[in-house]
Amino acid sequence: MSDRLQSTRLFVEAALHAHAEIQLDNAGSHYLANVLRRGIGDVVILFNGRDGAWTAKITELSKKAVSLKPISQVAEQVASPDIWLIFVPIKRARLDFMAQKATELGVSKIWPVQSAYGQMKRINDHRLEANAIEAAEQTERLDIPEIGAFESLTALLSNWPEDRSLIFCDEGEAGATHVLPETILPPLRGKPAAILIGPEGGFSPDERRMITDMSQSVALSLGPRILRSDTAALSALSLYQAYCGDWRSL
Amino acid sequence: MSDRLQSTRLFVEAALHAHAEIQLDNAGSHYLANVLRRGIGDVVILFNGRDGAWTAKITELSKKAVSLKPISQVAEQVASPDIWLIFVPIKRARLDFMAQKATELGVSKIWPVQSAYGQMKRINDHRLEANAIEAAEQTERLDIPEIGAFESLTALLSNWPEDRSLIFCDEGEAGATHVLPETILPPLRGKPAAILIGPEGGFSPDERRMITDMSQSVALSLGPRILRSDTAALSALSLYQAYCGDWRSL
Repeated sequence: MSDRLQSTRLFVEAALHAHAEIQLDNAGSHYLANVLRRGIGDVVILFNGRDGAWTAKITELSKKAVSLKPISQVAEQVASPDIWLIFVPIKRARLDFMAQKATELGVSKIWPVQSAYGQMKRINDHRLEANAIEAAEQTERLDIPEIGAFESLTALLSNWPEDRSLIFCDEGEAGATHVLPETILPPLRGKPAAILIGPEGGFSPDERRMITDMSQSVALSLGPRILRSDTAALSALSLYQAYCGDWRSL
Repeated sequence: MSDRLQSTRLFVEAALHAHAEIQLDNAGSHYLANVLRRGIGDVVILFNGRDGAWTAKITELSKKAVSLKPISQVAEQVASPDIWLIFVPIKRARLDFMAQKATELGVSKIWPVQSAYGQMKRINDHRLEANAIEAAEQTERLDIPEIGAFESLTALLSNWPEDRSLIFCDEGEAGATHVLPETILPPLRGKPAAILIGPEGGFSPDERRMITDMSQSVALSLGPRILRSDTAALSALSLYQAYCGDWRSL
């Protein structure tokens, strides 16, 4: 693992091909030169979510800018399974954590929502995205999860896509659902799905009714203990990947 | 969930029965009186890992001491599945996190070990235990995971119990194992097992050989992405509980 982790992987916006010249901004220059101590001639790996992974050589490096020249494609683009994570954020530190870990676990969209008993009124989208990018660089995925715009859970659910299953983990109702994951998850293979994690303060009765009334919703139990919402999110994503997702297709 | 989380749950060392009188120390008094703002006559829930859960009434409360009188047993003692988590700690903050999350996920023993490429030379057992106790209080489990004494991985493995499977998650060898969890985990149901998480710096060749040579070891793959060791631990524990553990017995 050490070798794999030690190769520097950077997400860039620009197209990657043999004739491209990639310019990084101030932050990228600082990171490469001062944090990673790379210099002209060093080779790193670039990805942009569309063109796979490319080796690239540093051709210019100053305090303000870095130029890199793509050499060759070393991995083809692979899409992550179509699984969203919808959750009610509580604290900023745990929101960072959720974005990082969900990205490692291959989520395709991270969607913070507001619920009746939620505490956060605003979300820093850029911070969420920065956490997702950093985790993608470390975990060697070649795409970045999309970040859903913060809105109310009821608004999101009232426009819910017909064909997307809603895997509903309600720690507040622990003991209410006795269905094994091997019963409910395998039928969802290859189809769009989302995991919805209940807030630690619980859903409101209206929210709960709205969820359980949806034909796309299916309840997933995460055992007899009460999990924090971040633990529940990681557990549910792990089960999804093992039963339905790309942990099957190695 | 809100109701369940809001009832105060406290771990105590003393025996719990109808004629007991429970004394808390300074820290317990401070927590009950100043953090939770409870007073004489208030009822909390106590557990000790042996006698189930008891409601108890606060009968005395000063800055230095609290007395509680158990009222009645509200849950019988339940043992967690016999699953250990063995890992190589990296940073203190992530060690805290690992202890909390593993406790939530029902681990029976948390065992930090030293490996050839590990960075931490010492572990604060009390801090590890405090994190486990706090998580047990929040997650509503009635036992506290045991904390294994910090020693070298090779010493631990050379005294490995004959009957305990070693589920080996080696993120360093991602792609090496193509076995689905539904193939390797269900045969382990009802038997002692341990999850061993590779350090992010990788095992040494000697350590790796020692592990793969053991008749009790079985490799579990956690997908195509490289997971941080804490993510790998939570994912593996989640899969274990879903395929073998007490998420099945609701």
